Parts: sequence; structure tokens; C-alpha cells
Amino acid sequence: MNYETPQFFHVMQYAAAADRDVIDMVSGNPDWEPPEAIRDGLSEYAESDASEFQYPPSDGLKPLREEIAARRNVDPARVIVTNGTGEANYLGMARALERDAGEDCVLIDPVYPYYPGKVSMLGGETQLVDAARNGTLDVESTCEAIGPETGLIVLNTPNNPTGAVYDIDSIRAVVETAADHDALVVVDEVYDHFDFAGSFKSALTLDADNVIVTSGVSKSMAITGFRVGYAIFPQDLIEPAKTRHMLVNVTTSRPAQQAVYNAYRETGPDYYAAARDRLTDRVDSFTEALDRAGAEYTTPDGAFYVLARFDGFPGTMENVKTLIDEAGVAGMPGSTFGTARNDWLRFALVTPRATEAAERLAEYFAE
Amino acid sequence: MNYETPQFFHVMQYAAAADRDVIDMVSGNPDWEPPEAIRDGLSEYAESDASEFQYPPSDGLKPLREEIAARRNVDPARVIVTNGTGEANYLGMARALERDAGEDCVLIDPVYPYYPGKVSMLGGETQLVDAARNGTLDVESTCEAIGPETGLIVLNTPNNPTGAVYDIDSIRAVVETAADHDALVVVDEVYDHFDFAGSFKSALTLDADNVIVTSGVSKSMAITGFRVGYAIFPQDLIEPAKTRHMLVNVTTSRPAQQAVYNAYRETGPDYYAAARDRLTDRVDSFTEALDRAGAEYTTPDGAFYVLARFDGFPGTMENVKTLIDEAGVAGMPGSTFGTARNDWLRFALVTPRATEAAERLAEYFAE
Repeated sequence: MNYETPQFFHVMQYAAAADRDVIDMVSGNPDWEPPEAIRDGLSEYAESDASEFQYPPSDGLKPLREEIAARRNVDPARVIVTNGTGEANYLGMARALERDAGEDCVLIDPVYPYYPGKVSMLGGETQLVDAARNGTLDVESTCEAIGPETGLIVLNTPNNPTGAVYDIDSIRAVVETAADHDALVVVDEVYDHFDFAGSFKSALTLDADNVIVTSGVSKSMAITGFRVGYAIFPQDLIEPAKTRHMLVNVTTSRPAQQAVYNAYRETGPDYYAAARDRLTDRVDSFTEALDRAGAEYTTPDGAFYVLARFDGFPGTMENVKTLIDEAGVAGMPGSTFGTARNDWLRFALVTPRATEAAERLAEYFAE
Repeated sequence: MNYETPQFFHVMQYAAAADRDVIDMVSGNPDWEPPEAIRDGLSEYAESDASEFQYPPSDGLKPLREEIAARRNVDPARVIVTNGTGEANYLGMARALERDAGEDCVLIDPVYPYYPGKVSMLGGETQLVDAARNGTLDVESTCEAIGPETGLIVLNTPNNPTGAVYDIDSIRAVVETAADHDALVVVDEVYDHFDFAGSFKSALTLDADNVIVTSGVSKSMAITGFRVGYAIFPQDLIEPAKTRHMLVNVTTSRPAQQAVYNAYRETGPDYYAAARDRLTDRVDSFTEALDRAGAEYTTPDGAFYVLARFDGFPGTMENVKTLIDEAGVAGMPGSTFGTARNDWLRFALVTPRATEAAERLAEYFAE
């Protein structure tokens, strides 16, 4: 079987081995502090009774599931705590494909490369549909691509890599067309806390019985290494997903679950607002430098990436390596995000050196 | 798709809801303290730099992988740190079945129920081969069951539920027969530290290119909820398993990895020896009471379970519930471990009340 291995680690290794100072704009690791309650929760957990170190329920600690359910306004029975949003997406996509209701999977291009990787691993067939030029959902062409052989559509909003925040009417149209063809829609909302324009609305508000919503705290709480995510299934679809979760992972790591539960309880909205403010400042200074470099780009409404296109410098792996060696800035090749953005490069703004990186790019491309 | 849902949680819920004191001999959760270095490692980690809270390498923290590799005397490149031994088994079994080298999977009966559940989820066909009456491997009938359609054999030593420790010559014979038919052998050694007779020898010592060994610290360090396990693949087989691991889980939880690394470094052999001594004491008192109850049983050489058979009281779910209600002892029905031990019950000795439970059983069956 041939999976498409995501290339993130490859670029990071190249950057780490470079013979000069390189600003890492590759990984999606937040560079700011997690909520204090993460540290406190872990320390307290370390002192708890040994019985607390044993298996939690397979679908997650009950108070954590209830907290997530309350925040997302769903029945706790619909929630599975997963090993990050990555596992949540795997469970949702597997659920769609195991129904024998069609093996075609509609993904939006540019595409987060783990999605086609998972489709291939699960025996599905990827069909890429171009996003609109500004990175939002092209409703017409997306709905046109959905047919009797379609089993799954995956949406991601706020979007990695385009920074688009899909409007809820566009999502509704896709969900209804999917329902007409007995297809499930997985909506990955892991960047839900990074919505600069305040326009994000969760697909859960559609209350549709063919929608699986995934998310997690890797980005919102700046703890990508803890692996705490969740999937919210329609009630009628969840049981086989719980069984798959049990058969693959048994359950997920309890210290991390406990720390996240504590952080949910103790962390106010200021924490998330500060992260958004930090990012919008970086977006401003980065795009200002892109202007000076003569680049094309779309200002993101959410998530924490900027796609940029430099004339005569397509987004190949080779050019990414050139930028690492000659400008000291590591981005991701657009060509790893499907086919629609081959000419583009993705820069992650989760570094305190985003402005410095922008200066380096402006200088390099002005030469 | 129809997976066989493991019944552990069902019995535990029934016992928890019972209207009387019930001694839990269902779950495989050690009831003793983890190494002190687990708590210390977590506390120290809680204070580390925020960058330490981000993604570790997909296949695990490098020092942890190296520590595991050194302990198992293999190249670190052959090790993947997994979300418990459960994920390790999933990766090994998936690796065997994705090769199109046969979809028949030979499992030894009695069988840990997650194995046939995973086989079914992965699209394979389970073929059960009876263990010998004393729970060890029946080499002749196992090898006879391996043919051109066989893609996978799963062995578990020390064995859950029989307590048998397979001798290495038996394993070698199965591995060689498997190799003749291009089948892989997954050997689950999660109970490797619970080897009372000192006769355990790892399948890694065979140095065979069709053997995948899985294990973890859930049992040995008494932290089933942390989810730290590992799979050791032959070099030629590991890359697609790493990709699958990445596509399913991205990586596993870092706080737990860090705590386990610390515990590997700081914990001496006395810790493991004390756990073995505690268990052999329990085996003695429990089997002594089984004698008084007139039960048939095999004294385990390893792991921490006893299979027992009481005349006229087969190991059905109904009888398990009767024992919970009438004797105050919760075991597992033999019928959940394949078909070979339908008449038997499994009792986990990981409770400080094992002796008390034995008295209750002796009294109940003496009536």
C-alpha cells in the first residue's frame, strides 16, 4: 500500500541541518505559553492516587467529555475524546468509508496533506476540488463533484493553509448535497479559536445527521504534543467509531486528558483573545513585508498561515530548500497541499520571529 | 462493518452497579504504585519550557526510543513508540494484512478478544487454533493451520488469559513455518516483566525478518492509563507502519512519554521483582482456595490471570453476573476469550483483595 507521507518532518529536518540561522515557519506548533492550568493540572495529577493512573473510559474521562459537550452544545454521548484531532479525523473518515456508501472522497484543494493520506490508507479515492481563488469554499464546483459514488467530503474551517473561514451557508449547501447522495461530511474545526473576523460558525449548528465535527486543543491551548482532540458524531453513527477507537488505541493518555480538563475549567476567554491579537499583529507585519516583496497573498481570516506567491519562484520543495539556505526562512511547498497551489508557499505565523522572517523575504525577493 | 466489541467494560459496569461489595478481578489494571520516577517525571515535565509541550517526533521522543532499543537490543530505527501496546498490535497486524500476502489470521484460543476484533476491523479472517490444555502453544496444530492464505499469526507470551510462558523453540517453529508461507508473526510481550519461572525469552532473540514484537509499560510500570507502548519491526517492514502511525495518531502524548523515559532511567530491578513477588503470593493463596472450591485451574507461569473451571458452572456472561451478585467476585467469562475456554472463568490477580476473593469463591462453590 502506498500512503502519501506528509512532508512536514522532511522540511523541518532540512532546516535543522542547515548551516545558518533559519526561522521556522513550517510547523503548526504555537510558540506561546499554554494556559497556566495545563501545568497546574499536570502537577496535581502527578500526585494523585495510583488508581488514577489506570485506564480512563475508552471514550475519555467523563468530566472531560461532558465539558466538551457543554461547550459544543451537544449530548455527551456524541463525543469521543481522541488522540488529537488527527485521530478524530481518522475515525470520522473511516466511519464514512466503512459504510459501503461510496469510496470517492471529495477534498478541497489546497488540501491539508494528511487528508489524502488517510483516504488512501482507508482504501478510498481522493477527488480534489479547487477552492476559490481567495481560499474559501467554491460551493458550486464542490456540489457538482458530489455524486452517487461519493462517500465522504472533508472540510476544514478556519482553513489550513488558506486562512479562509467558510460561511455557514456554504457549508450547509455542501452538507445537503452530500445528504442527497448518502455521503458524510467531516468538518475539521481545529482552528476554531483562531477566527480573526469573528465570522466562524461551527457546522454543529446545522444539526445535520451526516456531519461529523472534529477539533481539539492542540492549537487553542498551545499543546500539540499532548494529543487531546475529539470527534462529535451524530448519535446514529457513533457506536462503530467508538469500537474502532477502542480497537486502535484502547483509550488516550490520561495525564493529558486530566490537564486539559483542568485548563478548560480554569482558563478564561482572555487567554484565547491574547493569542488572536498576537496573530493578527503578525499577519499585519508579515503581509506588509510581502507587499514590499511584490508577492501575491490572501490575508487570512483565521488559522495561522499565510499562502504567498512570488513571481518566477514556484512553491516546489527545491525552492523551499533554496529559501532555507539563501534567505534563512523555512516555509512549506505549496505542492504538498494538493495541486491548486503549486506556485505558492505556506508560512506558519507561529514564531515570535515572524516579522524578522518577513524582512528576510522582502530583502531576498527585492534583490 | 461489525467489530466484536470487547466485553471488559460491560462486566465492569455491571459490577460497579451491583447492590453489594464486589471484588474486581476483571480489569488488567495493576493495583500497586507506579515507579516514583513516573510521578517525578511528570512534575518536572509540567515545569518545562512551552516548546517541550509541542509535537515530539512522530515515532516517539528520541531518547525514549533509544532507551527501548537498548533494553531490547535492537537498532532504534526499528522502534515506534505507540499509544499503548494496543496501538502497537494494531500497527503490526495492519502491516501483515496490507501486503496482500493472505488474509487468514491464526490466533491462539483462548484469545485476548482485542485480537479478533482488530482482525475483523482490518478485513482479515480469524482462524482459531486451540492452545494446549495447560495453555501453552500447541506447535503441531498451530503450524498445521498455517498455509498459503495465512498472512498473520498472533502470539502472546506470557499469555493472557492462560498464564503460560511459551518456550522459544515453540515460537521458532511457528515463525519458521510462517516464513515458509510469507506470513508475519506478531508477538505481544506486554507481560514480559511478569515471568514467575524465569523462563521467558523474547521472540526478538530469534532475529527473524517476519517477526514484529510489541510491548509497553502499562503493566510493568502500573500505568495502563498513560498509553505508552512500542512496536519493534524488522527494518524492511517498518516504513509503512510509521506512515500508518502518523496518519492515525500523528504521534503519542508527550507528558506520558517523558514520564516513562524518566522511569526507565531511574527505576531499578527491585521494583519489578517486588511486583512479581506480590503476584506469586497471590497466585499461591488464590489457587489454594480454588483447590478447596474443587476447581480445575492451571497455575500461571506469567502474566497475572488465573483461568478456573467449576463443575456445572460454565463461563458464560450470565454466570459471571451470578458470581457478582451472589459471591461478590467479578471475573471475566471464558466465552469472551474465543471458544476453547467456554467452561472457564478468568480472574485477574491485580487486586489486594485476591485472597479475600478466593475465600468467597471457595465458600460459594462449597455450598
